[in-house]
Amino acid sequence: MSNVAVKERLKLLKEKMEENGIDYYLIPTADFHNSEYVDKHFKVREFFSNFSGSNGSLVVSRKQAGLWTDGRYFIQAENELKGTGITLFRMMEEGVPTILEYLEKEMTEGETLGFDGRVVDCNFGKKLSEKLGKKGIAIKYEKDLAEEIWLDRPILPCHEVQILPEKICGQTYEEKVAKVREQMKEKNTAYFLLSKLDDLMWLLNIRGRDVVCNPVALSYGFITMENMYYFIQKNAVTEELREYCSQYNIILKDYHEITGFLKDFSYEGTVLYDGSNLNYALYSMAAERAETVDAPNPTEKLKAVKNETELKNMREVFLRDNVIVTKYIYWLKKNVGKIPLNEYTATMKIDDMRREAEGFLDLSFETIAGYKENAAMMHYEATAENNKTIEPEGMLLVDSGGQYLGGTTDVTRTIVLGEISEEIKKHFSAVAAGMIRLTHANFLYGCSGRNLDILARGPLWEMNMDYKCGTGHGIGYILNVHEGPQNIRWKFSEGQKEAVLEEGMAVTNEPGVYMEGSHGIRTENVLLVRKGEKNGDGQFMNFETLTYVPIDRQALDKKYLTERDIQWIDEYHEEVYRRLSTHLTKEEAEWLREETLPL
Amino acid sequence: MSNVAVKERLKLLKEKMEENGIDYYLIPTADFHNSEYVDKHFKVREFFSNFSGSNGSLVVSRKQAGLWTDGRYFIQAENELKGTGITLFRMMEEGVPTILEYLEKEMTEGETLGFDGRVVDCNFGKKLSEKLGKKGIAIKYEKDLAEEIWLDRPILPCHEVQILPEKICGQTYEEKVAKVREQMKEKNTAYFLLSKLDDLMWLLNIRGRDVVCNPVALSYGFITMENMYYFIQKNAVTEELREYCSQYNIILKDYHEITGFLKDFSYEGTVLYDGSNLNYALYSMAAERAETVDAPNPTEKLKAVKNETELKNMREVFLRDNVIVTKYIYWLKKNVGKIPLNEYTATMKIDDMRREAEGFLDLSFETIAGYKENAAMMHYEATAENNKTIEPEGMLLVDSGGQYLGGTTDVTRTIVLGEISEEIKKHFSAVAAGMIRLTHANFLYGCSGRNLDILARGPLWEMNMDYKCGTGHGIGYILNVHEGPQNIRWKFSEGQKEAVLEEGMAVTNEPGVYMEGSHGIRTENVLLVRKGEKNGDGQFMNFETLTYVPIDRQALDKKYLTERDIQWIDEYHEEVYRRLSTHLTKEEAEWLREETLPL
Repeated sequence: MSNVAVKERLKLLKEKMEENGIDYYLIPTADFHNSEYVDKHFKVREFFSNFSGSNGSLVVSRKQAGLWTDGRYFIQAENELKGTGITLFRMMEEGVPTILEYLEKEMTEGETLGFDGRVVDCNFGKKLSEKLGKKGIAIKYEKDLAEEIWLDRPILPCHEVQILPEKICGQTYEEKVAKVREQMKEKNTAYFLLSKLDDLMWLLNIRGRDVVCNPVALSYGFITMENMYYFIQKNAVTEELREYCSQYNIILKDYHEITGFLKDFSYEGTVLYDGSNLNYALYSMAAERAETVDAPNPTEKLKAVKNETELKNMREVFLRDNVIVTKYIYWLKKNVGKIPLNEYTATMKIDDMRREAEGFLDLSFETIAGYKENAAMMHYEATAENNKTIEPEGMLLVDSGGQYLGGTTDVTRTIVLGEISEEIKKHFSAVAAGMIRLTHANFLYGCSGRNLDILARGPLWEMNMDYKCGTGHGIGYILNVHEGPQNIRWKFSEGQKEAVLEEGMAVTNEPGVYMEGSHGIRTENVLLVRKGEKNGDGQFMNFETLTYVPIDRQALDKKYLTERDIQWIDEYHEEVYRRLSTHLTKEEAEWLREETLPL
Repeated sequence: MSNVAVKERLKLLKEKMEENGIDYYLIPTADFHNSEYVDKHFKVREFFSNFSGSNGSLVVSRKQAGLWTDGRYFIQAENELKGTGITLFRMMEEGVPTILEYLEKEMTEGETLGFDGRVVDCNFGKKLSEKLGKKGIAIKYEKDLAEEIWLDRPILPCHEVQILPEKICGQTYEEKVAKVREQMKEKNTAYFLLSKLDDLMWLLNIRGRDVVCNPVALSYGFITMENMYYFIQKNAVTEELREYCSQYNIILKDYHEITGFLKDFSYEGTVLYDGSNLNYALYSMAAERAETVDAPNPTEKLKAVKNETELKNMREVFLRDNVIVTKYIYWLKKNVGKIPLNEYTATMKIDDMRREAEGFLDLSFETIAGYKENAAMMHYEATAENNKTIEPEGMLLVDSGGQYLGGTTDVTRTIVLGEISEEIKKHFSAVAAGMIRLTHANFLYGCSGRNLDILARGPLWEMNMDYKCGTGHGIGYILNVHEGPQNIRWKFSEGQKEAVLEEGMAVTNEPGVYMEGSHGIRTENVLLVRKGEKNGDGQFMNFETLTYVPIDRQALDKKYLTERDIQWIDEYHEEVYRRLSTHLTKEEAEWLREETLPL
């Protein structure tokens, strides 16, 4: 897209703002469910800014247009915003205001802030209305100004829903909803308004295809003590789903009926909702008519703690995926310099390899294949038009994963294709050291990711280096690749929820180095939280590794590793060979033997 | 004390409760200022329970008497409570209720909880009154029932106050109070009711002697935008203090006038107070008459961040103290088995050595000298009557410190006196590894102790072992040896304040091993937080070590240490020798050379 078009669109937006008496207009990146990935229909911020990263908010006023995004996207945003006149606000950097701080400073009494209340989460909506209200600033949240400007906007996605068998889920809907209702009772609530899509899928043991890479169906749930109202687009409902729902006392309603339902329902108790993902418009509708309690969705932690059936399936799926990635690395190394290769074809290759795998459903996110300096962009995506040619030198970072019937994978390896600098070896070794140290953490029950982050980040901090993102995120089961509440992060921020690492949670372990204009390195495994020894000092916990794919020996240098790092990497590689060799061709297995020899 | 006396006292207390219509009576451990150490006058809980640890609360009802204390004191409390009939509640252990949970469960509608409102902090008082109020339970907080039972109770301590010269403080009262007023304004408050004694001393650049080991004077402050009302016992006021106060617009009032003052003052604005240390009685008095804001005392963090004058003085004082402790270790090792030695005489020896030092004011806490299994009691205190004979075998743990004109010290070494087991060497090496790893932390600004704790605790966690306390605490400047807001701890607890480690803060680094009935090990240094490199990734921070005293090589075994641990310990020992050798006798220096050779 040319950024001339962006300027034109912003001009039209400002006209609409004028017409509607709006002085500042906020465009976050969200669907009606605060999903992480959003369908094309919801890409309003990209439409008005050209910035295509997954996280970003645009604020437009007569004077200025500003885009807020996080450290993963600074480089990408700078490039994509060129020529738009939009100012980049680098979130979390010293001296950079938050959106709220910016609006509080810039807006004056009598002015109006506008946004589409369906794409703003209710916590943020409440905060905006409270803080700006104090300054005499009005809020208009009923109108989506894009509707009259974005004329060729894609329609809402809608796909048929699939019901998962019990051997995949390990727990029935009835068992799950009983646990949810227990928590509703504990919080003295009679109703639970659930709009988080992956939580709905988990609870109902169904999957959809309405969000790219996330196997979810656009829908809402309203759970009472006796039944559940389930709001979903008519065309997503199959005969099988209809029967399933009637069997379980689930009342099907159309997706768009939620508004009317919340207005007309005879509330006889308190409504539980999660302010961090219910949208501001729905929240307002319920809160005007009933008592409400803001608390994390009871489904969130129940979903995060995988049951034994899920764990068993995950182990099988990860083995399958590990084999694919290892075969891919072999293919890359054998073919680089011999066949034409670029970031896009490299992406297509691994995606195709996964598509052929047993149980494959979808990618779990768009594959990132960044060559040399492009790897410094954490969420870079090569396209058919825009990509870099891969040659037998430097490194290629490949971050990819699949949705399988049996689990969701996410793995990153940075692959040596030819000569690399000493600096790269140093950085690569430090990343591997951090990854392997976190893997071997032994910790008391009660730790969250904040207690452990320094294990992964330490080798870089020792060199006065950092990566501007968390070390790891929770990961779903045939669901979103990013899933809460657990994570591995170090920073404390006021009001941030912190989740204890519970047995059965899955989390990624992905330290990295990102040198703008030079190189990017990331090594990512998935870990399961397991119980260790219990004694008088407490319940110890540790990690089981699901990802076994070689870490490129050519970029590992013993002089940057401690003896223990070396021992742990050698043990890891021995296990990679043991697990994968029988699933490879003879040539691949011979190569893997070399790749997994002790350092 | 015989525990028959305790039973008799509890009987009298129950009679008084009956007379006063009180069903449950709570006796926490606090003075009117929520100080950590309390004068004999305030040791009501010890009077009624015989438990002498620094932290503990007693709850007495017709049915049961229960004592709550933390992990440091489990062993000691078990011993001291024997024969009293009092039940020990081990705080933080699984399934053990908090005091509030206990009262909520045990008390029934129409019953009354009693306590002396002056020795209960207002946060806890408010919580008790709110939670129990819901159950129809009344609170009586006006009466100290001990008054009519404890007939030979010591009177309130009172000592003359000393004014510190600027070359010791580095900042005048005027400069300090200006910063405090800035923060009062930021919080839109007109008054600041300050009852924390060390904060008052810091602000006024004075010191007292009313609390054992804490150089503070019993007093209260009420700070307005123009002046400060200072409430202090008449006999503590010298002519010099009177002049000093009039010079700075500080209005002196008697300590006991605070109540009348808070009742009669014409409030024209909001009162700032810190709910975690203002007592419930004073809080109630102010809150009935004025708007209040509960926030950390602005003095707390200002005091914690030491200025350059303080840092310079601390470095000198620590050197002096390091020399004393090193000479003491030499003396111990030379004399054990040759002269009669027990824990008490060993305690007297180091205390006497400190008393002779330049600038010595007081001990910073009662010296802990625990031999063999007694070292497993974290806060053990040997007495002339009750102590263990020291022989040339096993280890002696000595945790001690001094108040000097120029700083407060706190250091622990566990000293080998003869044969020790392989298990002890393993534990000792792990403790040393943890201590040295935390010392070498390099971390981004924004970290709190929660991010770093695992560095010190990791070597023990790897062996499925833990110590049931924090790794480190903030330390005052000629003030309390335990000082907030910073600390090094791993556990998250709801509502807990967390302090970023700021340049100039001092913190202890003291991992340990405590094997009940067998042995105890602790190695403790004091660290200063310093700024390191600042670059595009942020402001890096690191630690400067103040404590240089040899770590006993006889208990260090290379097979339990990583190469890096060994290198760091060797470097530390080299620096110990470099700094101390010129301050020792020839024999001591020769011995130290041996003690500090590379492992």
